[in-house]
Amino acid sequence: MRQMLKTRLTEKLNISHPIVSAPMAMAAGGALAAAVSAAGGLGLIGGGYGDASWLEQQFVAAGNQRVGCGFITWSLARQPHLLDLVLAHKPAAVMLSFGDLAPFADKIRDAGALLFCQVQSLALARAAMAAQADVIIAQGGEAGGHGASRATLTLVPEIADELARQASQTLLLAAGGIGDGRGLAAALNLGADGVLIGSRFWASREALVHANHHAAALRAGGDDTIRQRATDIARGLDWPEEFTARILQNQFTRRFANKEAQLREEISQYAKAYADATISGDAEAAGVWVGESTGIFHDIPDAGDLMQRIVREAVDALTKSAASIVPGGA
Amino acid sequence: MRQMLKTRLTEKLNISHPIVSAPMAMAAGGALAAAVSAAGGLGLIGGGYGDASWLEQQFVAAGNQRVGCGFITWSLARQPHLLDLVLAHKPAAVMLSFGDLAPFADKIRDAGALLFCQVQSLALARAAMAAQADVIIAQGGEAGGHGASRATLTLVPEIADELARQASQTLLLAAGGIGDGRGLAAALNLGADGVLIGSRFWASREALVHANHHAAALRAGGDDTIRQRATDIARGLDWPEEFTARILQNQFTRRFANKEAQLREEISQYAKAYADATISGDAEAAGVWVGESTGIFHDIPDAGDLMQRIVREAVDALTKSAASIVPGGA
Repeated sequence: MRQMLKTRLTEKLNISHPIVSAPMAMAAGGALAAAVSAAGGLGLIGGGYGDASWLEQQFVAAGNQRVGCGFITWSLARQPHLLDLVLAHKPAAVMLSFGDLAPFADKIRDAGALLFCQVQSLALARAAMAAQADVIIAQGGEAGGHGASRATLTLVPEIADELARQASQTLLLAAGGIGDGRGLAAALNLGADGVLIGSRFWASREALVHANHHAAALRAGGDDTIRQRATDIARGLDWPEEFTARILQNQFTRRFANKEAQLREEISQYAKAYADATISGDAEAAGVWVGESTGIFHDIPDAGDLMQRIVREAVDALTKSAASIVPGGA
Repeated sequence: MRQMLKTRLTEKLNISHPIVSAPMAMAAGGALAAAVSAAGGLGLIGGGYGDASWLEQQFVAAGNQRVGCGFITWSLARQPHLLDLVLAHKPAAVMLSFGDLAPFADKIRDAGALLFCQVQSLALARAAMAAQADVIIAQGGEAGGHGASRATLTLVPEIADELARQASQTLLLAAGGIGDGRGLAAALNLGADGVLIGSRFWASREALVHANHHAAALRAGGDDTIRQRATDIARGLDWPEEFTARILQNQFTRRFANKEAQLREEISQYAKAYADATISGDAEAAGVWVGESTGIFHDIPDAGDLMQRIVREAVDALTKSAASIVPGGA
């Protein structure tokens, strides 16, 4: 018999499984978002650094599926018209992460989309509560791509307690380090209503990721990733100081480890090489955007099949761990 | 009706609850270890940096309770006779962390104690497997005190998979960031057989911790801790490069943040002040050794009461999350 996981998230979004795919810049296009939604979750298109024609294409690629979209908030602030473009597509949700929510929160809600706010600390969770987020996503530093230093395992229950005291109607998702159904099961035990999964969907067929990068991630373990800033410097991106990016260690990260000042000074010399390496799929000379969970997955499946697998694994983990409860004790 | 959690760990150790208290240097004395064992877990005395008379006192304080002891392995290598001292007390287990296992593994097993090895990466887990550890403890960087950068949430399932392939009789504990029963429940879902808990027992009455430090931890949230090396430099301790220590942010950490080279140069000027601050319980001028889980606990209970509470919370979390499983799905 097939089974589902019913939580406050599945109820609120009217979906089958408490799984949202992360709006990974570049990698999360309309095909991935649509596949996740079609399989019973909610897929989010990655708004990234803002390319209007790319965004339009991705909504076309998503077809009639109900999807959402996520933005890098500090970048959106420089091109606020992109929010209008997205809201015109009637997204189920708009997710904001990495920046001031105030300029956008009301507009998103007024357009009828749910406001998802990703946070990396209790302090940022309080800001999301002040902006009346519908869903707060607690992202730990084990995540691939941009994030900060708190770990998912402590951040989720700490924010769950704060929400229980102050905003019990606000839902909570766990993000960062969740690469299979065991992670989903763990997140539910920590007090989350569901999960936002990035790296594992990055490693699916529908993701817009070069085959060389997928191959590099499958060879790697969790020990092989690192948080760093060199990828942002090489691209000339003004990321706020508190956020770094987790990628695979490779020739690029080894070259500029602890040499960020040098890279900043000599950027004119490296910017084109970095851009070229990204386009050509060179997995040694450009960033490979996957997190610590790369050590627990070993294939590149269809996103829909992956959804079913994660749910099945979570049901198994929840069933097995609950069976450890026995009568007795002092 | 009281309930227990039965796992491979409770079976192997013949204990009631799958909870081991961490052998925190200085803080985990015989009274704490004995209280944890008396309440149905296994308590470990902190061997620390090696003071023979202190260790003898702690085994006296543990009385007739069956306890174990843990060592900082690189420090033990400088005073190997301390292992003989501990083995003479017939400990249930000896835990090694932070160093080469080879000189000690056989001796521990030959003395009839279980060999617990704490690891901070998959690479170190493989070394522990090679040393034929009975129990491997996967410690994430959210832990208080010394550790490294991998997160518990990804490290545990990655090592669980490796053990399933290579050493299925070896047990696995999760450590780092587990501050209540939700964390224990999450760990079981990730594939662990139990947990090793540090910070939460540091915040118990039996821990050898100054009241000022307890008060500072209760005021703090998880955002307020930081990984750093200044505490080791100030004490003149030669910790290997790959390990840092998580403590509360305070005047001391702010003063030497990113100024470790300066502290090393001027150590003669700071060493006595640091030592004096530690002795006097100054929570601003010395390290307060607690991890990210400080944000989810709010009292200093008896360790035995705490054990019961953690088990009750874990049973609740496991029961509630398993109830989210419902029939259905495509």
